[in-house]
Amino acid sequence: MERMGRERWLDSMVLCRRDIHAHPEPGWLEYRTAALVASRLSALGYTVTTGKRACKSEARMGVPGAETIRQHEERALRDGVDPAWLEQMKGGHTAVVGVLRGAKPGPVVALRFDMDCVEVGESEEAGHPPRQLRFASDRPGLMHACGHDGHTAIGLGAAELIAERAGELAGEIRLLFQPAEEGCRGAKSMVEAGWLDGVNYFLCGHIGVRSRTLGEVVASVDGFLSTTKIDAVFRGKAAHAGESPQLGSNALLAACAAALHLHGIGRHGDGATRVNVGMLEGGSGRNVVPAEARMKLELRGETEALCEYMVRETSRILEAAAAMYGVTCEWETVGHGTGGEGDRSLIPQIEAECARMESVGSFVASMPIGASEDATWMLRRVREQGGRGVYMLFGSPLAAGHHQTTFDFDERVLGTAAELLVRLVYACPGWPEAPGTGASGGEE
Amino acid sequence: MERMGRERWLDSMVLCRRDIHAHPEPGWLEYRTAALVASRLSALGYTVTTGKRACKSEARMGVPGAETIRQHEERALRDGVDPAWLEQMKGGHTAVVGVLRGAKPGPVVALRFDMDCVEVGESEEAGHPPRQLRFASDRPGLMHACGHDGHTAIGLGAAELIAERAGELAGEIRLLFQPAEEGCRGAKSMVEAGWLDGVNYFLCGHIGVRSRTLGEVVASVDGFLSTTKIDAVFRGKAAHAGESPQLGSNALLAACAAALHLHGIGRHGDGATRVNVGMLEGGSGRNVVPAEARMKLELRGETEALCEYMVRETSRILEAAAAMYGVTCEWETVGHGTGGEGDRSLIPQIEAECARMESVGSFVASMPIGASEDATWMLRRVREQGGRGVYMLFGSPLAAGHHQTTFDFDERVLGTAAELLVRLVYACPGWPEAPGTGASGGEE
Amino acid sequence: MERMGRERWLDSMVLCRRDIHAHPEPGWLEYRTAALVASRLSALGYTVTTGKRACKSEARMGVPGAETIRQHEERALRDGVDPAWLEQMKGGHTAVVGVLRGAKPGPVVALRFDMDCVEVGESEEAGHPPRQLRFASDRPGLMHACGHDGHTAIGLGAAELIAERAGELAGEIRLLFQPAEEGCRGAKSMVEAGWLDGVNYFLCGHIGVRSRTLGEVVASVDGFLSTTKIDAVFRGKAAHAGESPQLGSNALLAACAAALHLHGIGRHGDGATRVNVGMLEGGSGRNVVPAEARMKLELRGETEALCEYMVRETSRILEAAAAMYGVTCEWETVGHGTGGEGDRSLIPQIEAECARMESVGSFVASMPIGASEDATWMLRRVREQGGRGVYMLFGSPLAAGHHQTTFDFDERVLGTAAELLVRLVYACPGWPEAPGTGASGGEE
Amino acid sequence: MERMGRERWLDSMVLCRRDIHAHPEPGWLEYRTAALVASRLSALGYTVTTGKRACKSEARMGVPGAETIRQHEERALRDGVDPAWLEQMKGGHTAVVGVLRGAKPGPVVALRFDMDCVEVGESEEAGHPPRQLRFASDRPGLMHACGHDGHTAIGLGAAELIAERAGELAGEIRLLFQPAEEGCRGAKSMVEAGWLDGVNYFLCGHIGVRSRTLGEVVASVDGFLSTTKIDAVFRGKAAHAGESPQLGSNALLAACAAALHLHGIGRHGDGATRVNVGMLEGGSGRNVVPAEARMKLELRGETEALCEYMVRETSRILEAAAAMYGVTCEWETVGHGTGGEGDRSLIPQIEAECARMESVGSFVASMPIGASEDATWMLRRVREQGGRGVYMLFGSPLAAGHHQTTFDFDERVLGTAAELLVRLVYACPGWPEAPGTGASGGEE
Repeated sequence: MERMGRERWLDSMVLCRRDIHAHPEPGWLEYRTAALVASRLSALGYTVTTGKRACKSEARMGVPGAETIRQHEERALRDGVDPAWLEQMKGGHTAVVGVLRGAKPGPVVALRFDMDCVEVGESEEAGHPPRQLRFASDRPGLMHACGHDGHTAIGLGAAELIAERAGELAGEIRLLFQPAEEGCRGAKSMVEAGWLDGVNYFLCGHIGVRSRTLGEVVASVDGFLSTTKIDAVFRGKAAHAGESPQLGSNALLAACAAALHLHGIGRHGDGATRVNVGMLEGGSGRNVVPAEARMKLELRGETEALCEYMVRETSRILEAAAAMYGVTCEWETVGHGTGGEGDRSLIPQIEAECARMESVGSFVASMPIGASEDATWMLRRVREQGGRGVYMLFGSPLAAGHHQTTFDFDERVLGTAAELLVRLVYACPGWPEAPGTGASGGEE
Repeated sequence: MERMGRERWLDSMVLCRRDIHAHPEPGWLEYRTAALVASRLSALGYTVTTGKRACKSEARMGVPGAETIRQHEERALRDGVDPAWLEQMKGGHTAVVGVLRGAKPGPVVALRFDMDCVEVGESEEAGHPPRQLRFASDRPGLMHACGHDGHTAIGLGAAELIAERAGELAGEIRLLFQPAEEGCRGAKSMVEAGWLDGVNYFLCGHIGVRSRTLGEVVASVDGFLSTTKIDAVFRGKAAHAGESPQLGSNALLAACAAALHLHGIGRHGDGATRVNVGMLEGGSGRNVVPAEARMKLELRGETEALCEYMVRETSRILEAAAAMYGVTCEWETVGHGTGGEGDRSLIPQIEAECARMESVGSFVASMPIGASEDATWMLRRVREQGGRGVYMLFGSPLAAGHHQTTFDFDERVLGTAAELLVRLVYACPGWPEAPGTGASGGEE
Repeated sequence: MERMGRERWLDSMVLCRRDIHAHPEPGWLEYRTAALVASRLSALGYTVTTGKRACKSEARMGVPGAETIRQHEERALRDGVDPAWLEQMKGGHTAVVGVLRGAKPGPVVALRFDMDCVEVGESEEAGHPPRQLRFASDRPGLMHACGHDGHTAIGLGAAELIAERAGELAGEIRLLFQPAEEGCRGAKSMVEAGWLDGVNYFLCGHIGVRSRTLGEVVASVDGFLSTTKIDAVFRGKAAHAGESPQLGSNALLAACAAALHLHGIGRHGDGATRVNVGMLEGGSGRNVVPAEARMKLELRGETEALCEYMVRETSRILEAAAAMYGVTCEWETVGHGTGGEGDRSLIPQIEAECARMESVGSFVASMPIGASEDATWMLRRVREQGGRGVYMLFGSPLAAGHHQTTFDFDERVLGTAAELLVRLVYACPGWPEAPGTGASGGEE
Repeated sequence: MERMGRERWLDSMVLCRRDIHAHPEPGWLEYRTAALVASRLSALGYTVTTGKRACKSEARMGVPGAETIRQHEERALRDGVDPAWLEQMKGGHTAVVGVLRGAKPGPVVALRFDMDCVEVGESEEAGHPPRQLRFASDRPGLMHACGHDGHTAIGLGAAELIAERAGELAGEIRLLFQPAEEGCRGAKSMVEAGWLDGVNYFLCGHIGVRSRTLGEVVASVDGFLSTTKIDAVFRGKAAHAGESPQLGSNALLAACAAALHLHGIGRHGDGATRVNVGMLEGGSGRNVVPAEARMKLELRGETEALCEYMVRETSRILEAAAAMYGVTCEWETVGHGTGGEGDRSLIPQIEAECARMESVGSFVASMPIGASEDATWMLRRVREQGGRGVYMLFGSPLAAGHHQTTFDFDERVLGTAAELLVRLVYACPGWPEAPGTGASGGEE
């Protein structure tokens, strides 16, 4: 790309990121963001799919209540979202897929970007860059504090470059813009809708993740923990705590007992597990025996089996804690990420492209992580079908850790990430087959 | 009173109650209500005191934060509250006292009425009378669900009748309109401001309290439990629950442990005790080790000593629960009601007046109660000084229990209560002295 | 009684008490004590019943295991207990009843004495009187630390005096020597065997109970708490705690959770309750997930209904605690005392007799108590049938509280108690009928 | 060795093992066993050290109380233990070291054997081989259920063969007979006494450990968990649970709370941890607020740092649990094993010797284990000084798992283990130096 074009391209990603940052949308409610993506992909010549064909309705997890959805749809209309896109997406079906087919045969390459924000109120500090530069969140309690605004901008930046060189394209490109990554709620619905079927190469990643040097690239993240997210509600009976406490059934104490006992789930000899009751609230008045309590928790395991062990233990404990206080407990799975790791055979290929890039300063082959991601569902489906994929990291110093109110990254990472992805897209038709898999690109 | 006058008087109390019901104000923020009371008393000829001279600033408990106070004061101005009154009351000093002195010597008689609402959202049901008759709360999450709207209306109704017959008055009448009865936060500040000093007869009471027949009067409630209300906040350290849970200090689990252990405080051989953690909430995100948790709790005891035992145990448990998780706990007393009971020597006097009233259908000498009230601080001060007082109940069927979203009472109770109070005010100069106390009215 | 006779009689009670003290026997295993009682009553002319006809086998609670019973029976034989009595009592049926009928008609009067020791090892201190005077317990871990040795001696002392004056007797005398009062295990079995049926007057009591002046008599104890004693065992699965903790099911943690939650059973608005997990043990090795845990607990309530509330809560908590850890819990009631109080109409009669006794120094009409006793089952049955009864206290200074290793009393209390009981036996044919009951003695 | 000599040698080990099995002795009380070892080594020509010079007194952990020690010493005398040895060992200093120096220079080689039994009552089943062959434990509640009887027999068998070929010996042989391996209490005291200083090669191991084929050898066990064993005692105040529960301070509930919270110690992001409250007991009577409770627990970590994290958490929790109930908690470390693994450079050397042995059927280079051992302290000290060591397994089918009442092994494993150790002793002077350590045997 000639220099002026590159400057303009970099600027457009920055503007895009800031626009999305200013209008953060939580999972399954990314109407404005998804419509922006869909319009842009469409304008660039991609065949765009959104709504229920982009994400299988029943496979979505942690979908907000009907009233919340309705309010966000109304707001989207007020904000000028194209009613045609909104109509397709309505009811919380905000996945977007853009497909471009090359003239020549070649592999199917899928890139995935996530679009949702987190439920954190953005810092009011004057020195916080998004506030200083006037693109801070306009929605109280919502913020792009995990960098998905950047991810979406990278996706659209890559989409533009790929489209520019569409004539050279071999095989098929699928750009997957995923809703609801936070809480591991969205990826599976795109897998179930079939978008990973037939994929030979799958590329995705994250900017930031611990503060790292700008220009550092990690080719493959290992050791994602399998995770299950659960919401539970305990319901008992209120009573006047002074006059007749015995008439009540204390839902709050049941929740407290559950929280303590969940954190006491025994260690497992086969590997690491985790449990966190992240949020709990209950009770209606100081002098009333609490009739209701709610908790949000997550479980993790080094393997899917370990995570299942944690879920079984949790199920028993929730029910026993309810029984302990004569109350009921209803709980549901609202998110699920599987374990997984990238395909190490792609590391040399990525290293080769990085070596050619001026903006890549250091290269790390692989790095373990103790966190969870639902892109693992996509990695798994691709691998099950003989394809290969990786989850990369694109280094940037961070103003504060992910999900914190002063989170921010160095916007120069957008160019590095988008350029590397585009390079990989054009390079992969030439890659050797995965050893032992018999997977071959290009034949379809 | 002639019939038409009585009808008008009854109607004016109903209108007053509905006006207050429509604009509920929580404890220490009763600007609109208190200003209404102050204006009305002033117009009737009472000498009105409000602000810091009506309630001792440091003796107030559970005062809301500065920002909340500011917002309510702004709202009060927008709602048309007289800035002169507001200026006196500002900073949460919403007590009002009206004094009327008779021409003749006589006892000092004090009547007490409470003005605050509770934090309950009023029922949206069309059939709920305040909604049907269009005087439901205009403030989300706030409601007069305990009848204090009625109490204030009774107070103003009584004020009017007493003023009408001011010429006959012997001694001194003090009408005490108390803020923040909910949570036992306000009475002590009026006691400390000296308004119960020198009082010979003290009359107060409640409408409703368990659904009772209209026209029933209980002359004296016994067995109030001494109570202390406490707010606690636990503060620890957040951490990513998947990658490095060991870096966190879990404030939520500390709160849960505290809640369970508080409910496990041992029984006391000397009498009844109570504990209730009525509200608890903590945590900021599902995958974050919770760094903060808050709880609201109350303790009670059949005697002040038993309540103190509960407070000592609570203090130790809160600190130990914090230590258990390496977090801190700060707690404060936000309310305190002492135990107490009425003076039984007044029962025959009340019975005598009731016997003369058409609207009183049945009379109960005394009734025990397992609840708490801070009028007990007033009863205690009066008694300490040789005076006599009672806490009465004025029967009304209730649509739902106190503090429930569909709470409502039969407005005819307003007339019964106000009339009885006025009768007692005019009767008490003639009552015999309290046996053995040597208390004598009228000499000051 | 002439003086020398009285001295001899007093001495014989002291000797009897010391003999029993030296050979303490726990509940249902009082073979030596019961045989001594049976022989003596028989020699005095009473018709003696023991074994299954004296206590209904199925109504006994907390009976020791078969092996323990066998060992005590063997020991009893070795100790020279008459095999004829042992044969009747075997299997833990150690109740003894002695009946004497007068020549004249008159009321049925029953007196009850308990015989069992407690599981406490007697003090080794040289200054402890039973050790100094060489009648300390010869059985490690067992001691008459509650005064039942004295009670049995009083019973035999009274039996002697009554028999001496048998010719004057009107009606029927039943002397009930009860096993297993500790843990409230024995009284009900004698009630179920019918020995309280037809009783007009029932007299029983306790020496000591808080340290009191020698010569003080309390005519009627009030406010016994209803109580239920429960043994629970939790069974899970052992596993190596280092290699594979997940293969275990932790019975000890289930027991610990149960203990904490039992102490957290909510207060009841209707009155006092109590809970105490008095003993808990579990686990087999430091590095083994505990597969078993056992606990002994007791529940109390001011009324039978309150005690039943505690039992219901306990039942739910034990099961929920087991479920919490995936283990089982089996529990059984091993003792039960009902609430109750004496008949106040007997107080003046008792006062009258006391007034005639030189050894009675002070008289207390009634006294509340926060403890439990299973003589309450007898009081209840007598009352249900129109009879009257009281539970008295016979004052003595105590060297240490009941159940402590240095417990001891002033042996002069034996004479006071026995004399008062005999006086009452002979006086009661002349008492007025119970008001309103229509109960009349002497007609059978 | 000629065949007949070998048969005799094998038989002598079997007889030795059975003799020790019949007289099991717990940690620090192995007077009979240690005296037997000391006498035998002395007879074979070893320089024998025992008592405080063999194990540093202050570095011993989990030493029994003075009274227990006294009883075992008396019993040892009654059992005919040589008073001269006993005098040296008294007070629980039962370590024995035998040293043999070769004529030629060469490396220092140390072999370690443990001697203590476990606190398990041996099975009464007639078919249990030690019972069938009449060498079952003669001490109730004590049993060699972990194979240390075999280890001691192997040590003495090896001692004999080494002594027979003393003329060929190069360097120095140290045979370490360690007390109190159970609970990881003894090894450190021998390390602190200096017996691992200067050691070039350290060999130790275990028979059995999961049921394995006879003749299988594992050259090096990896992944021992670092562990700390703790005993805690909570002391509060007794009170009558019915009359005045408030006067008590409940030590049992404090222990229960501690147990639950200890099992809730948070997972650590750096690796595996373990916690087990293996035993807990408290309380003195059903109706007494428990004044004392005791617990035995163990902590583990994949690394020493992780184990220290668990100890820090435990310390805080024990103190907080005590504070929660107003009781005290005293705790002490009664055992400690560090993590560790063998030196892999020795594996080929061991494989080479195994290949020459008829009785070795299969060879495993290394195997991870989730358990703990205190030989790790010896491995660590040897490694710190540049020496090398391994912990081997000698396969045997097991009748039941370690520490179970029917534990037994195939006695043929004794010959295999002893022969391999002797071969290694004579082979190691010829081994290559440890790579990179510069450690060289023989020069001293």
